[in-house]
Amino acid sequence: MDELPRTPRTTLKRLPKRGSHDREVINQILDEGFICHVGFVLDGPPVVIPTGYARVDNQLIIHGSQASRMLRNVGKGIDVCVTVTLIDGLVLARSAFHHSMNYRSVVVFGNASVIDDREEKIAALTALSEHIIRGRWKEVREPNEAELQQTTVLTMPIDEASAKIRTGPPLDDEEDYALPIWAGVLPLQLSIGEPLPDPRLPENMDVPECVRNYSR
Amino acid sequence: MDELPRTPRTTLKRLPKRGSHDREVINQILDEGFICHVGFVLDGPPVVIPTGYARVDNQLIIHGSQASRMLRNVGKGIDVCVTVTLIDGLVLARSAFHHSMNYRSVVVFGNASVIDDREEKIAALTALSEHIIRGRWKEVREPNEAELQQTTVLTMPIDEASAKIRTGPPLDDEEDYALPIWAGVLPLQLSIGEPLPDPRLPENMDVPECVRNYSR
Repeated sequence: MDELPRTPRTTLKRLPKRGSHDREVINQILDEGFICHVGFVLDGPPVVIPTGYARVDNQLIIHGSQASRMLRNVGKGIDVCVTVTLIDGLVLARSAFHHSMNYRSVVVFGNASVIDDREEKIAALTALSEHIIRGRWKEVREPNEAELQQTTVLTMPIDEASAKIRTGPPLDDEEDYALPIWAGVLPLQLSIGEPLPDPRLPENMDVPECVRNYSR
Repeated sequence: MDELPRTPRTTLKRLPKRGSHDREVINQILDEGFICHVGFVLDGPPVVIPTGYARVDNQLIIHGSQASRMLRNVGKGIDVCVTVTLIDGLVLARSAFHHSMNYRSVVVFGNASVIDDREEKIAALTALSEHIIRGRWKEVREPNEAELQQTTVLTMPIDEASAKIRTGPPLDDEEDYALPIWAGVLPLQLSIGEPLPDPRLPENMDVPECVRNYSR
């Protein structure tokens, strides 16, 4: 088991039994998700912005327009917190107090840096695309030089991180189990709809396999 | 149309045509979501934590254990940023560069305060429960005094906020429309599974209507 170090900010104070520093557990959550929330500080107050990401080994990759305020600032190496949250269900207890959610989340603290090297940048963009929809990259027109210039790609080590997970049925107070109240879990998940072809597509074009069989 | 003021931090620099300060638009997104990411600063670096929320008029309500570090600190009135993100689909363009996502997000900046008044606290907890699963509150055992004591409830005005929305098909470079590459949108949504009864429930207990017909 590859355990990440427990630092003051990754040591869970609340419900530590839900926490994990196991890299395997952290990676599984990061690999299932594809949206993170990036927190950074700009002139004092914090800002939290959603964006896509990929994991490559022990690095998180994010990208966006060169004009993005978030990427410009985060790329300077300021402190960031990147959080990924998967919601698995509503936990419906017999008491209002013990209602909860089943979830899996990862919080990564650290500092990002800009990928300048052309080959590394293309590799990171490929990884991002493959993380979000595997098999798509080889089907599409690759970025040209102008597009590469307009894109900022950041990498951030996953070295100071923790996972937090809740699973299973509600936990009620012992005396509440006798109450005639339905309790259980209502599972929630991401579901994938029918692909909507671009109106400008020629008729009868096959939907590619990576779209047809998309899953996470 | 009730427009919120544009402040330096809610004026969108990137793709401003995707942005809105219309309270109606902001409220619709906040009412469909139920998980927010709260960003705050603790001894320098930012921290981003997921949690449930409700909207009541022009206020956001969050709650949790009195022991929670996040609530303890945010309740002091420090600067916070609360972000809600709904992902509607993967936008698959003909070029790698124009890949995107359809999404609706809201960013709220401000300062929270603790609800101390007993009646207001119960009203806020009721609203939270109703926001996450309407009709559940009246079915369950209400919080007792000890539970109320252990729960911290925060309220934060939705006065400095903006929405950002992307919808519709990919937007490719004009010359790329001729390429023989499938393009379109792969819709994603939250789906609701079959309720899982608590193993300690008596047999043949009916699943209540608020669980059976859950939707967002």
